[in-house]
Amino acid sequence: MFRPCRILPMNRPQLTQASRPLTFEIDAINERGEIVPTSIAGEHPLTLYVDKREIVTLMTLGAAPEALALGYLRNQRLIGGLDEIAAIQVDWEVDAVSVTTRHGNGIAEARTEKRTVTTGCGQGTVFGDLMAEIDDIHLPPEAKLSEATLYGLLDSVRHHESIYKQAGAVHGCALAMNVNPGSEILMFVEDVGRHNAVDAIAGKMWLDGHDGSDKIFYTTGRLTSEMVIKTAQMGIPFLVSRSGLTQMGWEIARKLGMTMIGRAQGKHYLLFTGEEHFSR
Amino acid sequence: MFRPCRILPMNRPQLTQASRPLTFEIDAINERGEIVPTSIAGEHPLTLYVDKREIVTLMTLGAAPEALALGYLRNQRLIGGLDEIAAIQVDWEVDAVSVTTRHGNGIAEARTEKRTVTTGCGQGTVFGDLMAEIDDIHLPPEAKLSEATLYGLLDSVRHHESIYKQAGAVHGCALAMNVNPGSEILMFVEDVGRHNAVDAIAGKMWLDGHDGSDKIFYTTGRLTSEMVIKTAQMGIPFLVSRSGLTQMGWEIARKLGMTMIGRAQGKHYLLFTGEEHFSR
Repeated sequence: MFRPCRILPMNRPQLTQASRPLTFEIDAINERGEIVPTSIAGEHPLTLYVDKREIVTLMTLGAAPEALALGYLRNQRLIGGLDEIAAIQVDWEVDAVSVTTRHGNGIAEARTEKRTVTTGCGQGTVFGDLMAEIDDIHLPPEAKLSEATLYGLLDSVRHHESIYKQAGAVHGCALAMNVNPGSEILMFVEDVGRHNAVDAIAGKMWLDGHDGSDKIFYTTGRLTSEMVIKTAQMGIPFLVSRSGLTQMGWEIARKLGMTMIGRAQGKHYLLFTGEEHFSR
Repeated sequence: MFRPCRILPMNRPQLTQASRPLTFEIDAINERGEIVPTSIAGEHPLTLYVDKREIVTLMTLGAAPEALALGYLRNQRLIGGLDEIAAIQVDWEVDAVSVTTRHGNGIAEARTEKRTVTTGCGQGTVFGDLMAEIDDIHLPPEAKLSEATLYGLLDSVRHHESIYKQAGAVHGCALAMNVNPGSEILMFVEDVGRHNAVDAIAGKMWLDGHDGSDKIFYTTGRLTSEMVIKTAQMGIPFLVSRSGLTQMGWEIARKLGMTMIGRAQGKHYLLFTGEEHFSR
């Protein structure tokens, strides 16, 4: 299979690998009065500190906390590049992830002041100047996605959803290499918050030196403005979802020339935007 | 039907009634290459100001912006009571909701400083001291819910989901009166964010003088810690969802003695907590 070379970051930060148990068993009672052993998804608070300053508490499944912390800082525009980070250390005994910057000065006050908290699915994540920044994002104009590649991707995704199948109550995101025709899933992350899942992918992309231009982003969640903006920030031209979309997600994707496909399952889909990059 | 008296707030704030168009039509292309006219849910930024100070930008469907703004301030513990509010005015020309307090001093600095942003489904909403406050919440110990009431509620909810049926990509929440046996839906709110929907219900409850003790709260969304905490803050002893739950949602509901029912649809459900308040 064709695999474009990628350059691993020179100064990869030091990382812990502190995943939590992802599901738990409880007893529920069903409509017939029977006790039903039921798997439920883990959910843990994880407080993010940058150079010992508290930034945010994320509620997470806990599968990829280091990548989540990094991706959160990336997607919230609180750091500009991986090379700013010296270490990411998770300590579940105190439910904390501690990020140490190389310069040791934390996050510039100007960056946190500009933060505006918004609401996608839950409430939150920075919106602020994001809309203004959209004009600076240029997705690759020659990118192509074929229907055969899409179908292959949808088939592959089904095999990755382990927590969802067991416990529900999570969203999944995948990053796939688009090797037209065909695709290869490089990362799959599930989390109780769909924005956590996309943030963790963004963090992993930095850690593994992945560029977005030859990738496809898949999410089980809805295509809201925030999901479209984050995909664009990662430089990914193709966004695929099992779910539907919102008006603002649609408007932003059109403006960006992003190819957005929703209601995608099995051999069915709706192509919402970017028809010129898609071939049947 | 029995209807307990409720006391309408004396000093109800002045409100606009500024709903947006809730769905839009776009053309999508399906797997057969056919153009499919498709309804999509509206999504609009709404920036909340309190006494002219910017607090947050919420992305919302826009069905109940005044109640959303009020409920957001309530659930984030940024205001202590409805009587603090003189007016709530939405102006969609500038995508803003302006809240004017009676004392005119905005939100006490101490309250906003204590805010910690967390992640439920999306990222955000205050978590901070919420866990500590749980000990102070006492749900009514004698509350009862019958299976017949639950089934009736599930049937009623189906008739309310107008945006979801048309466009998907939204979550719905209902507040129902529990008139054992039987229930009556008092409010139903859909929004692109499930936390917006619950916040709008919280706002409407204040505006209409509803106490939570004789109510049932229904959500299409997952039972995460945040959903359980918000339901508890509204004083509602019964929480019903079509979806599953997370470990922390389960732990908090157990601690509170809340009756939590998930996977509820048609004549099926799983009773997760609070068996002693439920009768088959």
